[in-house]
Amino acid sequence: MSSVDKQLENLKAEITNELPRDISVSDVKYEGPELVVYTRDPKKFAQNGDLIRKLASKLRKRITVRPDPDVLSDPREAEPKILSVIPEEAGVTDLDFHIDTGEVVIEAEKPGMVIGRHGSTLREITQKVGWTPEVVRTPPIESSTVSNVRNFLKQEREDRRRILERTGRQIHREQLSDDEWVRITTLGCCREVGRASFIVSTPETRILVDCGDKPGSDDVPYLQVPEALGSGANSLDAVVLTHAHLDHSALIPLLFKYGYDGPIYTTEPTRDLMGLLTLDYLDVASKEGRTPPYESEMVREAIKHTIPLEYGDVTDIAPDVKLTFHNAGHILGSAVSHFHIGDGLYNVAFSGDIHYEDTRLFNGAVNDFPRVETLVLESTYGGRNDYQTDQQDSEKRLIEVINETYDRGGKVVIPAFAVGRSQEIMLVLEEAMRSGKIPEMPVHLDGMIWEATAIHTTYPEYLRDDLRDRIFHEDENPFLAEEFNHIDGGEEERQDVADGEQAIILSTSGMVTGGPIMSWLRHVGPDPKSRLVFVGYQAQGTLGRRIQNGWDEIPVNGRDGMGRSDTLKLEMDVETVDGFSGHADRQGLENFVKTMNPRPEKVLCVHGDERSVQDLSSALYHDYNMRTFAPKNLETFRFK
Amino acid sequence: MSSVDKQLENLKAEITNELPRDISVSDVKYEGPELVVYTRDPKKFAQNGDLIRKLASKLRKRITVRPDPDVLSDPREAEPKILSVIPEEAGVTDLDFHIDTGEVVIEAEKPGMVIGRHGSTLREITQKVGWTPEVVRTPPIESSTVSNVRNFLKQEREDRRRILERTGRQIHREQLSDDEWVRITTLGCCREVGRASFIVSTPETRILVDCGDKPGSDDVPYLQVPEALGSGANSLDAVVLTHAHLDHSALIPLLFKYGYDGPIYTTEPTRDLMGLLTLDYLDVASKEGRTPPYESEMVREAIKHTIPLEYGDVTDIAPDVKLTFHNAGHILGSAVSHFHIGDGLYNVAFSGDIHYEDTRLFNGAVNDFPRVETLVLESTYGGRNDYQTDQQDSEKRLIEVINETYDRGGKVVIPAFAVGRSQEIMLVLEEAMRSGKIPEMPVHLDGMIWEATAIHTTYPEYLRDDLRDRIFHEDENPFLAEEFNHIDGGEEERQDVADGEQAIILSTSGMVTGGPIMSWLRHVGPDPKSRLVFVGYQAQGTLGRRIQNGWDEIPVNGRDGMGRSDTLKLEMDVETVDGFSGHADRQGLENFVKTMNPRPEKVLCVHGDERSVQDLSSALYHDYNMRTFAPKNLETFRFK
Repeated sequence: MSSVDKQLENLKAEITNELPRDISVSDVKYEGPELVVYTRDPKKFAQNGDLIRKLASKLRKRITVRPDPDVLSDPREAEPKILSVIPEEAGVTDLDFHIDTGEVVIEAEKPGMVIGRHGSTLREITQKVGWTPEVVRTPPIESSTVSNVRNFLKQEREDRRRILERTGRQIHREQLSDDEWVRITTLGCCREVGRASFIVSTPETRILVDCGDKPGSDDVPYLQVPEALGSGANSLDAVVLTHAHLDHSALIPLLFKYGYDGPIYTTEPTRDLMGLLTLDYLDVASKEGRTPPYESEMVREAIKHTIPLEYGDVTDIAPDVKLTFHNAGHILGSAVSHFHIGDGLYNVAFSGDIHYEDTRLFNGAVNDFPRVETLVLESTYGGRNDYQTDQQDSEKRLIEVINETYDRGGKVVIPAFAVGRSQEIMLVLEEAMRSGKIPEMPVHLDGMIWEATAIHTTYPEYLRDDLRDRIFHEDENPFLAEEFNHIDGGEEERQDVADGEQAIILSTSGMVTGGPIMSWLRHVGPDPKSRLVFVGYQAQGTLGRRIQNGWDEIPVNGRDGMGRSDTLKLEMDVETVDGFSGHADRQGLENFVKTMNPRPEKVLCVHGDERSVQDLSSALYHDYNMRTFAPKNLETFRFK
Repeated sequence: MSSVDKQLENLKAEITNELPRDISVSDVKYEGPELVVYTRDPKKFAQNGDLIRKLASKLRKRITVRPDPDVLSDPREAEPKILSVIPEEAGVTDLDFHIDTGEVVIEAEKPGMVIGRHGSTLREITQKVGWTPEVVRTPPIESSTVSNVRNFLKQEREDRRRILERTGRQIHREQLSDDEWVRITTLGCCREVGRASFIVSTPETRILVDCGDKPGSDDVPYLQVPEALGSGANSLDAVVLTHAHLDHSALIPLLFKYGYDGPIYTTEPTRDLMGLLTLDYLDVASKEGRTPPYESEMVREAIKHTIPLEYGDVTDIAPDVKLTFHNAGHILGSAVSHFHIGDGLYNVAFSGDIHYEDTRLFNGAVNDFPRVETLVLESTYGGRNDYQTDQQDSEKRLIEVINETYDRGGKVVIPAFAVGRSQEIMLVLEEAMRSGKIPEMPVHLDGMIWEATAIHTTYPEYLRDDLRDRIFHEDENPFLAEEFNHIDGGEEERQDVADGEQAIILSTSGMVTGGPIMSWLRHVGPDPKSRLVFVGYQAQGTLGRRIQNGWDEIPVNGRDGMGRSDTLKLEMDVETVDGFSGHADRQGLENFVKTMNPRPEKVLCVHGDERSVQDLSSALYHDYNMRTFAPKNLETFRFK
């Protein structure tokens, strides 16, 4: 008998012993990090509201209780009973019964009302029908990404359960080594921005943290270094993804092409955004005539292998590693990732990309951990002069620019990343219009912005407190405001907009490297009354940066599908309004570290250009007397 | 056509062009780092004495010329012609013709006389018979190791040539990467003594430097870390062995069990000593009831894959790496290993184990390199108080102890490592007896000491200048002095010695962890007139250290084959005479660094306990203002 089977047998005995005599335990299994307890008495289990919580705290495991398939009631009988328990206002849109696990997935417009106070409604459902309810939100704006992911996972349910069971047994395997050490290997994003990737390793375990691409660089050399994947991608035990931007996520699906078959830990919104962004990444590559590094099939593999975690859940992901995600304030679902290694041996936190102050969309990054000895800190704006304008001032300036442009009868075109900055700007515009600071006019959303916004509204729990509350309780979802228009009519609609009255246009790509923004430049660019307004960072070498620097002859071709290869004379004004970054500025980074309690002993400054990481590293050393490093790629640090 | 074939074709054209019209080139091949030129006119080649040297310098390659097999004369005719050219005093003991390569291996007591002034005799041989002569020394003391290795290599000649050709093509392959970096990964011997192992890596190349065992530790965890062997041992391009001691060499054969199939670069004596020591290592393991980590077959594989290099030879071992060995002064064949990486990109020297001052056996370590940016430095005696007695004083003390013991009618028992310290002590004793400082008496050599001494006399080129000269020119080989007796009669002979007159006994193991020294303790230990004299370092946990610390109850069992499990009361005196170490002391290590020119920018202090590496590292930093490190195992440093 394997050690895991023995462990499960002991757990079954212990649980049986803890439960009241009239509640039976028919099986006990690991699924990913969870312990699943099957019972022939699900209703009695549900009556005793506190039972699962007590068991979980006693066994120090995450516990899910499921009915033994033998005792399941007929879904046709269960469905009306379930609906009778849930208040009508919850807006149930779908019920999906899974006989294999005894779960019923309830999709509802207001999941909170299906859950009830402290889960009371859920328990009532189980008491009535025996099934275990699981609740998901009906996207308030229809999202093809969310529905595709959900349908795919439904269809792959059986395969997924096999993956989860295998992963569960891996996580709970016996520790093999007597050695104790903790190492971080830097694979990418050191003294550069792009291709974020690290390995955290112990004698037992190898965890890949992020696996991003470097924009503008075709090859993926670091994955070919043996240190990256060891004896093949199979030598990895787990992959952790801090957020969905491509410089962190793009090569996650490639791992499956390389033979990886284990779990991806990330938040639910990051999973969906990763699906959206990596599929677009493949699309862009093929449109630009490059060979994509993997096929869309691999994106589906990545989604199938994702084990979503919520902020604050302390989760076993290996025999000697616990992972906890915390809000990072950067984009939807972005997570500071905290690793507790061994039994009190060592703690490492990866900031991922962070924004330390609150923004309209998100609460500021969490920097409060029980223990952290080493912090791996992003340094995008770590340079000594990288102080950003306050967002309040930036908003004022943006409003001024819009008003001026409106007054002279022009249009405002804003290139923006689909995920994050677009929604932030939407919130600014919605408020400005609602409060009369700018005239009412249509705000057209082009490219993936609409879809990304739909994903935001599907996961309001991940948004800033008061925004979440507005969406939850007051039914004032700002993203549903009537001025927002989804450009879904292609070139014809764009032409109409261009020929029409004053308007604001938000369009991808954010750095003017392709996408519908190219079309907008053609339509609106020659109009000297209109304005092009940059609200985000324009990287070296992008067309956006060149326009910022004064170029006004723009090559127009290719990606809009028109195949033209012309140059276009830009007559519109060009403005830059700083201060809407998703990244903490230098002050924010220092504040993040300064207010950490306890402060880490060591800080690795990464994810910034040479100057930024050096500046930040020496500032933190001088100001807080920590050991700080500005690593290069492909170094290995040993901490214990 | 592959890039290597194209390269060879170009080389053939270039060589043909350089040579006089009447000398043909029939083929050009790589064998390991050498370029082999086949010609139908070997005699004309040989007439033109300077031709090969000129070609080599023009092409910047090591060149060997061989006759095309078609034009070879019959060995039966060639043999008398060859012997007629060589002076009788050369003492030829064997001639071995290899039709496949046109080489004739000449074994002689005085190889210098076969070679002649500047190789004149060799050239004369080729002019006469067309064959290419290769000369090896007949061991002055019969060595079963040397003859086994030579016979084995003769038998495996064809296989070996295949290995060399494959390696040659690997070395001269086209460079694939545009990236430039140089890294060192520490696998073992950091903040510890034992299991020396490092990886030097570039985007093209991965080189393992040493692969030792840690005495007293059963497992080999570091080879199981993916960073150690990457995607299997096959991902290594080359293995470099600095010297034959087991803490550097023991696991080299294991690599072949793990699938390695590439070259081992080391000196010829190190190859033979490695064979001797690793076979003994297997033997000891099985006698002690442990499972040896590999079989003797793997030792043969290691020998077959060895490409021996001489001190000072600059050798291509990868498309972007040149290796040069220099005398390290530590044991026979020990080498400071200098890596020149890229075209002037970076230089790293590994000290291996060094002795900086001259000893009786060896010249002091070389510390003169064209360039070195990083030095990886042993730190065995790097601690702030690790100053050793001058060897002169130590010798005086040893002589005193021997005289005292002689005068009271006792015997002197010296536990000593077979390789290195035994021969040094033999030289001290031989001189002391010859000059009358101690009375003449037999010096019995037990364990592998005799065999190790035989290997020393086979390679006098690797010994100290004046010692080499004595062996070469004056026929005064001190190791052949008549007082030395090889114990080859087992327990019976030992009993006779114990029952007899005063004598000196040198026996393995050096730290009293097994071997015939256990027998000597049983035979001589109860004699209060006799003395046990330690002349080498006794590691923590060894019986030698315990006896040094005052234990006088010795468990006697097992390895002598008697199977007894008794304790023995030690009545003999115990003395320690320091100062015969094969390692530089703290002063020697500092001098090695201080007199380097140019001084390295960075020094990694390794191969010493925690305190030693920290002390040495901070001293070098303060005294010479270098960047110094005391790495842990399993870290990776990037230098470019």
